Amino acid sequence: MTKQLFGSIEAGGTKFVVAVGDSELNIIEKAQFPTTAPAETLAKCVDFFTAHPVSALGIGSFGPIDIDKKSATYGQVLATPKPGWAGADVVGTLKAALNVPIAFTTDVNASAYGEYIGGSGKDVDSLVYFTIGTGIGGGAIQDGKFIGGTGHAEMGHALCVPRPDDDYQGTCPFHGRHCFEGMAAGPSLEGRTGIPGQDLPRDNKAFEFISDYIAQMLFNTYVNLRPAKIILGGSVLSDAELPMVRDYFEKYNNGYVATPDLTELIVTSKMPNNSSATVGDFALAKQVLG
Amino acid sequence: MTKQLFGSIEAGGTKFVVAVGDSELNIIEKAQFPTTAPAETLAKCVDFFTAHPVSALGIGSFGPIDIDKKSATYGQVLATPKPGWAGADVVGTLKAALNVPIAFTTDVNASAYGEYIGGSGKDVDSLVYFTIGTGIGGGAIQDGKFIGGTGHAEMGHALCVPRPDDDYQGTCPFHGRHCFEGMAAGPSLEGRTGIPGQDLPRDNKAFEFISDYIAQMLFNTYVNLRPAKIILGGSVLSDAELPMVRDYFEKYNNGYVATPDLTELIVTSKMPNNSSATVGDFALAKQVLG
Repeated sequence: MTKQLFGSIEAGGTKFVVAVGDSELNIIEKAQFPTTAPAETLAKCVDFFTAHPVSALGIGSFGPIDIDKKSATYGQVLATPKPGWAGADVVGTLKAALNVPIAFTTDVNASAYGEYIGGSGKDVDSLVYFTIGTGIGGGAIQDGKFIGGTGHAEMGHALCVPRPDDDYQGTCPFHGRHCFEGMAAGPSLEGRTGIPGQDLPRDNKAFEFISDYIAQMLFNTYVNLRPAKIILGGSVLSDAELPMVRDYFEKYNNGYVATPDLTELIVTSKMPNNSSATVGDFALAKQVLG
Repeated sequence: MTKQLFGSIEAGGTKFVVAVGDSELNIIEKAQFPTTAPAETLAKCVDFFTAHPVSALGIGSFGPIDIDKKSATYGQVLATPKPGWAGADVVGTLKAALNVPIAFTTDVNASAYGEYIGGSGKDVDSLVYFTIGTGIGGGAIQDGKFIGGTGHAEMGHALCVPRPDDDYQGTCPFHGRHCFEGMAAGPSLEGRTGIPGQDLPRDNKAFEFISDYIAQMLFNTYVNLRPAKIILGGSVLSDAELPMVRDYFEKYNNGYVATPDLTELIVTSKMPNNSSATVGDFALAKQVLG
């Protein structure tokens, strides 16, 4: 019996990362290339997995995407502002060329699954993973299944309560001052201060604003889903902001809902080299193989 | 083979409703009594089900309650302001007296399950049910399972965005102006106007305020869970407010997340005589029997 290998595609809006994992979900091959036109970018994926064959493939994609297997547009990118990608048939193209089982979900769901299998969520039955970067996305798992009845979660676009002392107007063209992505993702730091987030001193008030909003988002998600872990990924928040996020969370809860110790409940991703999505893709590929 | 009968206990803070259902989940016996001390109230349940034996029992209880079967306090009422009930061992007491399998969940989860089995959710795989009455509670189902990792949802206590033109301070002792229960449950109508909700003209501005807040709650839950149906129960909202709730929902979404037609997505409970909880209890009892 041949040893099984699993493929991962992290399909991002800026770059694609492709990788091959062994049966223990260790990365044994990896490559990346910029996201250009769909035909060109998907052809590079096909080339990689033709050179490095796998038994099954897990794809974590930027969105919105159609993950409903009963839908006529399953496996496609939906209405995205990314030029050329709306309607791109990611799963169909790869399936036709590679002829292997494919698991298809969002990038953030893939990361959530990686954390569930091998990260901060490996000892619990339920978790929510948030990525806070250029945008904000959330993915939730309960007993091994993704939460999302008719489509994937869009947690970054839930309503935030704008602070009276924060006059920022938000970056989200749909939701102005009233969604988490627009008010608390990375670009909001530069939007408020004129200084790119990575160069902004951590004691700048803008970090307090976004920590407050992120705490609101975590609290709302907690009362909706009651996860055992909330894991924060992405490049914007660091461990330095965690105490502030936990303090605001408790301010909003105000002793109402029972929680684990917040240092246990709210954590940052600790998987090496941001590998949660890759490990998640491998595990989803392994699962789809049965 | 004897025909199987199923029991239901709707354990409310004001009254208990007990019922027996046949294998088609039709109610064949029903009684109710006021909620007094736990020992007395549970003894009345035991008397009823001793007179009308059932094969299994479904209980939908006021909360907070412990629904984690691995917990030492499983089946108990947790920290409730209801005198005498904190720590009341509902499942243990009934199990010892009746010795039948028991399904134990929240009142709102029971209603959600009833809608899923026999109500507005019977043709979909996922739904959220909200009860808007003295308080606000939500219960969610995806593929037949309740959503709630470590406990039941507390959706009524998620954060609302208070309107600048609404100076009401809220009824929730924990969350003031910042939770849905405090700002949009029935008592907020009288709190704002001095007129009990049931006597308040439907064109009073207070109905617009609560419709706005309820739309916020529905929108946030929608982006978190993407349910196929959102079903509103309880006595506070009527079909008259539904168009306003849908309009505010669309205002908050602003075309971002794909939804079904909102007249299909957001509906009121249509089960006769508020039977969703009873039917849900029967169905959960049937399920626990295997």
